[in-house]
Amino acid sequence: MSSKKPLIFVTNDDGITSPGILALSEAMKELGDVVVIAPDKPQSGVGHAITINATLRINKTKIHNVKEEYSISGTPVDCVKMALNKILPRKPDLCVSGINHGSNISINVIYSGTMSAAIEGAIDGMPSAGFSLMDYSIDADFSASKEIAKVICATILSHGLPKDICLNVNIPPLHLSEIKGIKVCRQAKANWIEKFEERKDPSGNPYYWLTGEFVNYEEGKTDTDVWAVKNNFVSVVPVQFDMTGYSAIASLEKWKLNKPFTVNTSLKRKKHK
Amino acid sequence: MSSKKPLIFVTNDDGITSPGILALSEAMKELGDVVVIAPDKPQSGVGHAITINATLRINKTKIHNVKEEYSISGTPVDCVKMALNKILPRKPDLCVSGINHGSNISINVIYSGTMSAAIEGAIDGMPSAGFSLMDYSIDADFSASKEIAKVICATILSHGLPKDICLNVNIPPLHLSEIKGIKVCRQAKANWIEKFEERKDPSGNPYYWLTGEFVNYEEGKTDTDVWAVKNNFVSVVPVQFDMTGYSAIASLEKWKLNKPFTVNTSLKRKKHK
Repeated sequence: MSSKKPLIFVTNDDGITSPGILALSEAMKELGDVVVIAPDKPQSGVGHAITINATLRINKTKIHNVKEEYSISGTPVDCVKMALNKILPRKPDLCVSGINHGSNISINVIYSGTMSAAIEGAIDGMPSAGFSLMDYSIDADFSASKEIAKVICATILSHGLPKDICLNVNIPPLHLSEIKGIKVCRQAKANWIEKFEERKDPSGNPYYWLTGEFVNYEEGKTDTDVWAVKNNFVSVVPVQFDMTGYSAIASLEKWKLNKPFTVNTSLKRKKHK
Repeated sequence: MSSKKPLIFVTNDDGITSPGILALSEAMKELGDVVVIAPDKPQSGVGHAITINATLRINKTKIHNVKEEYSISGTPVDCVKMALNKILPRKPDLCVSGINHGSNISINVIYSGTMSAAIEGAIDGMPSAGFSLMDYSIDADFSASKEIAKVICATILSHGLPKDICLNVNIPPLHLSEIKGIKVCRQAKANWIEKFEERKDPSGNPYYWLTGEFVNYEEGKTDTDVWAVKNNFVSVVPVQFDMTGYSAIASLEKWKLNKPFTVNTSLKRKKHK
């Protein structure tokens, strides 16, 4: 790996055999030397999990036609840490994750293994981006996504990224000609209202499947990622890993929780909104 | 559960049998009706993982002397979602997680199951806080932590919390008399430099343990959580779940990635710092 081409590290959360990672590694081969290091099995929804109470295995594989390739018996974040600290000869010029089979807009950034890999890349000082196609099908058409990923990654390679920022890119399931453009957005305020579907096992004991409904509290707000993808734009959200709620510091300081650690009862009971 | 007392939901990531959750539920019993809903096994480092490709079980237990108690076969975030949407009769007045056996300062907020439960609580609209004692021992002394948790939670119950904010509370391993006070802080910029310790299995094949060194890039910065706990203060960091890097939006908009989706080659190659 002594080439002058950029070194591009590709990972994902759907596992090394998913069509999405094939699409992303094919797109990245046009920009540099590609090394794929990805989970050996699907890891959707694992968020920023790391493996600390179990061991990890590295397996050299040859699934894709890339420079080097390894599957890891861990999470997407484990893959990033192993890539950087155990496998790759140097820090990659780019860390990309995906292409995820399914949406990672809005609050989903926090549950997403795809995005957690990109965030870990940023924590570790690599220019990083996660890509998601809003189509969960194994037969999803990644052709437009490949073009979008190529353009965005070429731009990252030439511009760099702002410090401590990675990108969350969501692509609507359309032909390239139908996509209106690429829109820089913020994360829409939304969450999931869960319903746990109860079933009975053969012994008659209950078990549950997590299901839920995505609820967007900012319908119509044109600066959000949810609006962008609904209106046939690719959404690009800059994502940071400093989770401090700076705007809340001043109001918490008014609590004056000083020794001898007694509650300031002069403050009235207030309802959380 | 028709009492007028606050309904307090207690969870953790070390599992329902850990001494830390016993300490937290004992402290919370002085403030309200406590329901414990926690993972049935240790879940350290699972971050914001949710269980979407496997089923979940709920087991009613009686480990602690609390109003009601359940162990869940999932992650801390699963516990929060199940508590709110399946188990509890109403939205709790408070969601608390911990007391974690070990530190969750700085970047650890993103890997921590303890803090992910509190963050999920905030996403779901509950006043929420995670508590961590900086002592990994099973025999850790939680007596000071119980007092600190009680004071902070009583204050949350009386003041409420700023919208979309939860608290990350880290407690140094000291007697209450040695703790200097409670300090509202920001998340220090730090990360882990990983070392993967290689061992051989009985067949001679390698496997790896994740180990690493915590590196703080803001040594001496008095407004950070790392500084606070090093100087015998309890650190309280307000944590948000909007991960948008707002300050980066303007610079990304300069990329002008418009159709026909070609890279703007007029921009010079820039190194990521």
